[in-house]
Amino acid sequence: MGKLRFDISMSLDGFIAGPNMTPGKGLGENGDLLHQWVFRLASWRAPHGESGGETDDVDEQVFKESTQDVGAIVMGRHMFGGGEGPWGSDEAWGDWEGWWGDEPPFHNPVFVLTHHPREQLVKGATTFTFVTGGVESALEQAQAAADGRDVSIGGGANVVQQYLAAGLVDEFQVHVAPVLLGEGVRLFEGLGPDDVKLECTRAIHSPAVTHLKYRVVK
Amino acid sequence: MGKLRFDISMSLDGFIAGPNMTPGKGLGENGDLLHQWVFRLASWRAPHGESGGETDDVDEQVFKESTQDVGAIVMGRHMFGGGEGPWGSDEAWGDWEGWWGDEPPFHNPVFVLTHHPREQLVKGATTFTFVTGGVESALEQAQAAADGRDVSIGGGANVVQQYLAAGLVDEFQVHVAPVLLGEGVRLFEGLGPDDVKLECTRAIHSPAVTHLKYRVVK
Repeated sequence: MGKLRFDISMSLDGFIAGPNMTPGKGLGENGDLLHQWVFRLASWRAPHGESGGETDDVDEQVFKESTQDVGAIVMGRHMFGGGEGPWGSDEAWGDWEGWWGDEPPFHNPVFVLTHHPREQLVKGATTFTFVTGGVESALEQAQAAADGRDVSIGGGANVVQQYLAAGLVDEFQVHVAPVLLGEGVRLFEGLGPDDVKLECTRAIHSPAVTHLKYRVVK
Repeated sequence: MGKLRFDISMSLDGFIAGPNMTPGKGLGENGDLLHQWVFRLASWRAPHGESGGETDDVDEQVFKESTQDVGAIVMGRHMFGGGEGPWGSDEAWGDWEGWWGDEPPFHNPVFVLTHHPREQLVKGATTFTFVTGGVESALEQAQAAADGRDVSIGGGANVVQQYLAAGLVDEFQVHVAPVLLGEGVRLFEGLGPDDVKLECTRAIHSPAVTHLKYRVVK
């Protein structure tokens, strides 16, 4: 079986999104500052339908690694979007089908954690399956779909925290952007030294970002 | 004139001390987990009166650098200790003379920010001067004492934040311990992307800690 892991961009002060997320602004205010390093990479641009970009720096290598060997993705309701309550009931979000348009970049089965049932949604090469049975059920389904490859946690913070607290994460990488946000959504919250034991296995940086890779010690 | 800089150990979730600091526990609960990497180094042990320790790994090199070229130190009232209000008025702390015994490890002039006047205190090779004129006054006095060498901010978080907000810091290093504290004192708070522009200039790690060095872009 593959690993359970995540790769998330974080500010030096620990935020993975700015405050005030809206349908037009999925990363919150100033949240785009966390992702400047990735927007300029060829391997990010291609699956997002944009040409050009860096093909030959350390960030490109790290980003490629982060998508390699991934066979399925789990994410939370807010990562997918769609507001609160039963699907379609939140007027601001309407009949929401994700942030990513008709051809989402995942190209892998995606399992969305939610308290509210919804039929499977197919967008291009990505299938979204909505799971109401909790994090372990979503992981089991994702592992079956990944067929031996890794399962990646797409976010958000709350889902990452649940998988860490349950002792299910094998490794992760935080891409630390050289910026302070001051407010927003924190990656790590409610987890103490007895919940998670870590070992740093790699630290590399470019002028744009610092990549810190950790193994969870079981 | 030398640089204004700081070197601080931080958990991966952004804390530089645990909760519930007391006279017997200056780092708060679990705060010692942030400093495991340094306690085992020869260059930390010697000025703290302990023998032995590592002399030849990356952490030792980084720690030596952090104390080299420092000619004076500024720190906040809580970093020095002594409770709240006029000096000596807080019964729990009594006639407090710092955490460090008769031979503090600084061996440099230390300027302690406080709202309450107090006479200079000499302990071994370290002189503590109590400054009531605010962060800029403390910096001016420290720079004069440093005589061309660097001034290091000893902490705590609030003092670091004041110097960053004032645009006075030239560079800093965070030593990221591979641990989550979940609660305590955060290094960065109340600072946004418009307050501080950063560039990572180095990222190196050992099994015990990851050292991230930043230049403040002026």
